Amino acid sequence: MKNITGTMEKKTVEAEELGNHIGENVQIHGSIYKIRTMSDFAFVLLRTKRNVVQCIYSAEFSGFSLSEITEESCVIVTAHVKAEERSKTGYDLQMIKIETLSWPEEPSPVVINNKRVDASMETLLNFRPLTLRNERERAIFKLQEGITCGIREFLKQERFTEVHTPKIVYAGAEGGANIFCLNYFGKEAYLAQSPQFYKQMMVGVYERVFEIAPVFRAEKHDTSRHLNEYTSVDFEMGYIDSFEDIMQMETMMLRHVMVYLKEQYENEIRLLNAKLPVIDEIPAIKFKEAKEMISLDYRRPVKDFDDFEPEEERLLYELVKQKTGSEFVFVTHYPSRKRPFYAKDSGENQEETLSFDLLFRGLEITTGGQRIHKYKEQIAKMEYRGMNAELFDTYLMMHKYGMPPHGGLGLGLERFTGKLLEQDNVRLSTLFPRDIHRLIP
Amino acid sequence: MKNITGTMEKKTVEAEELGNHIGENVQIHGSIYKIRTMSDFAFVLLRTKRNVVQCIYSAEFSGFSLSEITEESCVIVTAHVKAEERSKTGYDLQMIKIETLSWPEEPSPVVINNKRVDASMETLLNFRPLTLRNERERAIFKLQEGITCGIREFLKQERFTEVHTPKIVYAGAEGGANIFCLNYFGKEAYLAQSPQFYKQMMVGVYERVFEIAPVFRAEKHDTSRHLNEYTSVDFEMGYIDSFEDIMQMETMMLRHVMVYLKEQYENEIRLLNAKLPVIDEIPAIKFKEAKEMISLDYRRPVKDFDDFEPEEERLLYELVKQKTGSEFVFVTHYPSRKRPFYAKDSGENQEETLSFDLLFRGLEITTGGQRIHKYKEQIAKMEYRGMNAELFDTYLMMHKYGMPPHGGLGLGLERFTGKLLEQDNVRLSTLFPRDIHRLIP
Repeated sequence: MKNITGTMEKKTVEAEELGNHIGENVQIHGSIYKIRTMSDFAFVLLRTKRNVVQCIYSAEFSGFSLSEITEESCVIVTAHVKAEERSKTGYDLQMIKIETLSWPEEPSPVVINNKRVDASMETLLNFRPLTLRNERERAIFKLQEGITCGIREFLKQERFTEVHTPKIVYAGAEGGANIFCLNYFGKEAYLAQSPQFYKQMMVGVYERVFEIAPVFRAEKHDTSRHLNEYTSVDFEMGYIDSFEDIMQMETMMLRHVMVYLKEQYENEIRLLNAKLPVIDEIPAIKFKEAKEMISLDYRRPVKDFDDFEPEEERLLYELVKQKTGSEFVFVTHYPSRKRPFYAKDSGENQEETLSFDLLFRGLEITTGGQRIHKYKEQIAKMEYRGMNAELFDTYLMMHKYGMPPHGGLGLGLERFTGKLLEQDNVRLSTLFPRDIHRLIP
Repeated sequence: MKNITGTMEKKTVEAEELGNHIGENVQIHGSIYKIRTMSDFAFVLLRTKRNVVQCIYSAEFSGFSLSEITEESCVIVTAHVKAEERSKTGYDLQMIKIETLSWPEEPSPVVINNKRVDASMETLLNFRPLTLRNERERAIFKLQEGITCGIREFLKQERFTEVHTPKIVYAGAEGGANIFCLNYFGKEAYLAQSPQFYKQMMVGVYERVFEIAPVFRAEKHDTSRHLNEYTSVDFEMGYIDSFEDIMQMETMMLRHVMVYLKEQYENEIRLLNAKLPVIDEIPAIKFKEAKEMISLDYRRPVKDFDDFEPEEERLLYELVKQKTGSEFVFVTHYPSRKRPFYAKDSGENQEETLSFDLLFRGLEITTGGQRIHKYKEQIAKMEYRGMNAELFDTYLMMHKYGMPPHGGLGLGLERFTGKLLEQDNVRLSTLFPRDIHRLIP
């Protein structure tokens, strides 16, 4: 028997700590990202956890031959941190020795160490395990991590409890055909399209809950906006005064995220040239009024009275930005017939729901709203829709035995990330996208 | 158009802040948890986000009749916070007024407001939306949240990047029959048994990564230890010196979690009477030696030379605890034929892998190990096992184009929570368990 002491000797320094070692020799590990040979020396770029570090190779002080090293090999570099005023970092990293831990079998089939990966989206995604090693590509998903960290920090502060709800479910919250089926020990089961039912149940338990987890949609859309699996940020809160509270909470949350990113992800923001939106007030406009406004301002006939066309979302963005400066807009009071059975109808107009979408830079990134919390009201709406309430008895349990007024929302993490970076395809902000054609890698 | 300002007026106080309002009248909202009628007054327990607050009803100062309120109704209470030395909190909460936001249709069919829910596990789980409202039940999952928060805090500090990898996959990491299949637009796809392939790929990108997400196992086991969907805490790290580094990291992580829980979840620990383990050093013993030790000490013949029987895990726990005081034990060097194709074999003995399990209070909660990082070594092991390496070409991409020595682990969140609370069935620490019989709620 031996003992694991729970201690780890650090033999190498972190890239971010190099400045504390000026005048010293240090060891640092990473992958050789790029070798740039100059006339009588070379820049050797080392990819570390979060930063790419520039080392200087020179026959003068480097006790090895440049031909000994190769891109994408994993190494431990011994280097001298030499004070250098002309350098942005304040030092030069002079390579003294190198130990190679592993070599690639072959050079990468895609060039990954330029500023951008110069390849089609197909290639970019087919070679994901390699293309993500590109400094810019990986910054996208580091920033995405920042978004979730900022969200968690905010929601925790607002006393939300984080939950883990099942993804294999007995019925789809949204219903319909857009659902993946699986055989669950002889029973038919589905992959959850959202944690809707469960997060509502948990409002009865903790009042405020959230979950950041995968959701699955079997939609056959093949567009730049759709994924068949994505990461959904869901929150649900009880004791609301009106569905406006949910929009207020989201506005506060997004504002918090922007501050968090600026503080903690400066590097990635710079690398990606991300223009973070200023979130002051967010305009809210009724769906019907938005439709009319777009139609009038752009002299477009309304074709679909129940939903936006993607083009209309873009036009609305332009209009609102022009009028108010905001890159976000809440669209409220969607028609009842387009919203799920648990959506609460407006007291003023039964054909409208107390619901909203949030559009960001012309794309819907959030759907939310108030839910029905009274048992009889919920049963009545299900009956009106011709649904068999008995199939939903475990869902309706909470309504029957007491629920506060409540509501919540779901935010698509990949869509939000993509729009933050002004990308035109949601696949670009998805680590390993799943679409109607893509299941690999 | 109106504006969402991103502000929310707080009309009610939080339970935790009541002590700051002594001498004042406040409003507080929540569900009526329990009404306890005494001779000339009543205790009205209010369930808030995290705490149950005791209010006092008396005809003397409460301007309403006790018959107006009912358990599990959602209310806003106006109360006077009266200094009271004899109270543990330092104050009494005298109910002045009550506003009821919603009433239950019927009283709960299960008694949920006693210290414990006195019901069979079947009933407990069948009525989850209600039974989770029990103070003790919900504390279990609040504590579980604390575990993930502590883990995230630690891993972030150790510079791990959090990732979201797909759950619909083209091939199972572990292979075998224990996998859920689904029809993915005419192609056969699987539900991920672990993020194994993806977290390894991401080591090539960020060096250290983690994910806390659902995994799916179609195992037909019907035991107290198995779930068909559970939350897996996975981390993977590059540039390890040996597989011992992974055990060191896990030991540090678990130690951090215990400190975190003690600081932030004191209430829940007390309510659940949880005995948090002291994590000093964790003994590590080779699988073969452990088998021999159990056999010798308990005079048991060894039946299965490749794996532990559950009874053996319990006996090993007792032995180790007796000898060292530790409630954890690492078991290392599992036989190669019982470990997956990506497990790195020991240099000293090709029939053993550089792998480990972590047992906690007699139950395996973690499986981990070093992975093969060299392309040719991986291909050779796959060929030796008769596998078709071509089917794994996107997985093998990372090996081919350069990977550091690396390894990682997966920890079952529900098992860990359960053992922390000394529960004897993992379903009790699963919010909405999925097992061979259970898909609802």
